[in-house]
Amino acid sequence: MSHRLGGRPAPSTTATSDYPRVLDDGRVEFGVHAPAAGRVRVRPGGASDSALGATPIELVRTADGTWRAGTNPLPPGFYYYWLEIDGVTVNDPGSSTCFGHERCVSMLEVPGPSAQTDYYAEADVPHGEVRRKLHCFTDGLWRRTFVYTPPGYDDDQHRRYPTLYLQHGVGEDESCWSTQGRADLILDNLIAAGAAEPMIVVMADGYADPSLRRVYLTAAWTRELVDRFERQLLTDVLPYVDRHFRTAPQPAHRAIAGLSMGARQSLDIGLANLDTFGWIGSFSAPPLGPIDPAISFRGALAHPAGVDRRLHLLWLGAGSAETRFVRRMNDLGRRLQEIGIAHEAYLVPDGMHEWQTWRACLAQFAQRIFRPPATG
Amino acid sequence: MSHRLGGRPAPSTTATSDYPRVLDDGRVEFGVHAPAAGRVRVRPGGASDSALGATPIELVRTADGTWRAGTNPLPPGFYYYWLEIDGVTVNDPGSSTCFGHERCVSMLEVPGPSAQTDYYAEADVPHGEVRRKLHCFTDGLWRRTFVYTPPGYDDDQHRRYPTLYLQHGVGEDESCWSTQGRADLILDNLIAAGAAEPMIVVMADGYADPSLRRVYLTAAWTRELVDRFERQLLTDVLPYVDRHFRTAPQPAHRAIAGLSMGARQSLDIGLANLDTFGWIGSFSAPPLGPIDPAISFRGALAHPAGVDRRLHLLWLGAGSAETRFVRRMNDLGRRLQEIGIAHEAYLVPDGMHEWQTWRACLAQFAQRIFRPPATG
Repeated sequence: MSHRLGGRPAPSTTATSDYPRVLDDGRVEFGVHAPAAGRVRVRPGGASDSALGATPIELVRTADGTWRAGTNPLPPGFYYYWLEIDGVTVNDPGSSTCFGHERCVSMLEVPGPSAQTDYYAEADVPHGEVRRKLHCFTDGLWRRTFVYTPPGYDDDQHRRYPTLYLQHGVGEDESCWSTQGRADLILDNLIAAGAAEPMIVVMADGYADPSLRRVYLTAAWTRELVDRFERQLLTDVLPYVDRHFRTAPQPAHRAIAGLSMGARQSLDIGLANLDTFGWIGSFSAPPLGPIDPAISFRGALAHPAGVDRRLHLLWLGAGSAETRFVRRMNDLGRRLQEIGIAHEAYLVPDGMHEWQTWRACLAQFAQRIFRPPATG
Repeated sequence: MSHRLGGRPAPSTTATSDYPRVLDDGRVEFGVHAPAAGRVRVRPGGASDSALGATPIELVRTADGTWRAGTNPLPPGFYYYWLEIDGVTVNDPGSSTCFGHERCVSMLEVPGPSAQTDYYAEADVPHGEVRRKLHCFTDGLWRRTFVYTPPGYDDDQHRRYPTLYLQHGVGEDESCWSTQGRADLILDNLIAAGAAEPMIVVMADGYADPSLRRVYLTAAWTRELVDRFERQLLTDVLPYVDRHFRTAPQPAHRAIAGLSMGARQSLDIGLANLDTFGWIGSFSAPPLGPIDPAISFRGALAHPAGVDRRLHLLWLGAGSAETRFVRRMNDLGRRLQEIGIAHEAYLVPDGMHEWQTWRACLAQFAQRIFRPPATG
């Protein structure tokens, strides 16, 4: 009755655990020892269109009290999930956790062919650093901000760097881009290949008020979320970063981008502050209803010629498989074209509303900012 | 039948959760919504002498399906724990996790009177950084090392700093001293008060071979653990740090210290490498049997006069309430005195074998290194 373990533990599985494991064909096998439990399921933690699915996966009890289940082959990338044990949703004791969905959540990293995953892999190239900075904001709260500094940052004290402000999604925090997103590895690899300018990347908490984490997705909440973060970014984060890092503090050397909720913040805040940000990236911006230049983005599009002249790049990305978000991106793109604001659009092949899409968006966007457009 | 919530969520409770919460008198109330579960317990994750106890705490089901239980008043500090739901040990969905016990584990931070906790609190003082460095070791594995740089490190490019190598305990990793241990805050506060020299603190993975995480506490394992980490520290970590940071690379400016398993490593490696480390700190070193200068610490004490002359400080600390560890410390202290090696000993009042003791040890030890002894 013994079960021969196939494949190998996922990169996200802790060193002392056998599960989750990834088989050679990309199937993932979950497992947990729970002899006294009556029902164990895997609850996928992604959006409804995640490749891991949205439906709980029933685990089956084996003779020794271990519950197990396998998936279909999964595309490489990052997945959130939980175990549900007798109705309680908890983390998998055998896997690493990260912050998402407003709590600590199990992470699953599925490896894949190097052509698809090398761009975010550890490689023998110079590596930058992720620095955890602690500072007290004007609201009196202590916050962490994570700041990526590129390789060589410490070597030339006279060199100044462009800065990308990079925002997380709903229910996430300042740690996510350097954990789920592998932003540091993506930048290290692009910079080593000469495909991106060496840059500073600032990853801040997008919830200016922690109480906004408790309410969700109403129109009033979205307004608060954008307005309060805009104030915090301009009053607290940005001056702090310019004071503590060798930034080039002009709009031509400052970008703002984000995923999903962070894309909404980046569009609204970026377009309303072109004297601060010269480059804007939107990764899977959420659907927001019809676009009216007089009202949308707080009226920032009302004078399109000025926007077009001042903005170096407006970049829209999404995963080709996240239908609602692609529709939103296409609507926005069409409207921008009508009113005369140039933009670029990019679809991540087969990308869903999950981190693998945003890794790919970051890799594309980072190659396009702080340098003249490619010719040809 | 509704339960009025007392106190407030612990600092370690996630923003969207009501539990765990801390009442005004230091009692902690655990809670989890698990209507379908048959039995829910809190499993303390500390040593047997933790103030949270070693015995599971039974939670009681209330009418709405929430299980709850309170503790006796707890001393301020850090506690590991899990929930056990129908026999499966999992993290508390309402609390933050950190790495310990070879996995992700729930953390509980109990606040307390400022006289006891201010030294590791966020305060309006200049703050250093914790930098996550990624590098490939000679064994071909990629590792993270966390490096604390003191406030002002980036300002004066000609200044070199002393370096403390600070090791975690069994089942822990390179992230623990800056999460559970609050090493960065402790140093920030001491440096601001002029009570410690500005220093670099290197927090590396003490398991040179990940497979050592699976076996445990045999004599052969301990030898491997010390020997292999010694090689990795001297071959990989230390040259890397001296290359990437403005260290003062002489033994007079290098210290090694650690807690429990890390104390064992610090004593063995420090005493055997006095041409590298001039200051050694042992926080709650584990019991190791009788001390024979010819054999113990790999014979490093066989020539005590040379050791005493070269070593700037041998510092032994433990919590007064962790009896076995105090006995070990006193035995070692007596033996050192007999053979003529000076040392200092310090007992943390009421300290148990847990992080609050090691925070206090670090705060004491950091004031004693890289400067002449206090007079008086």
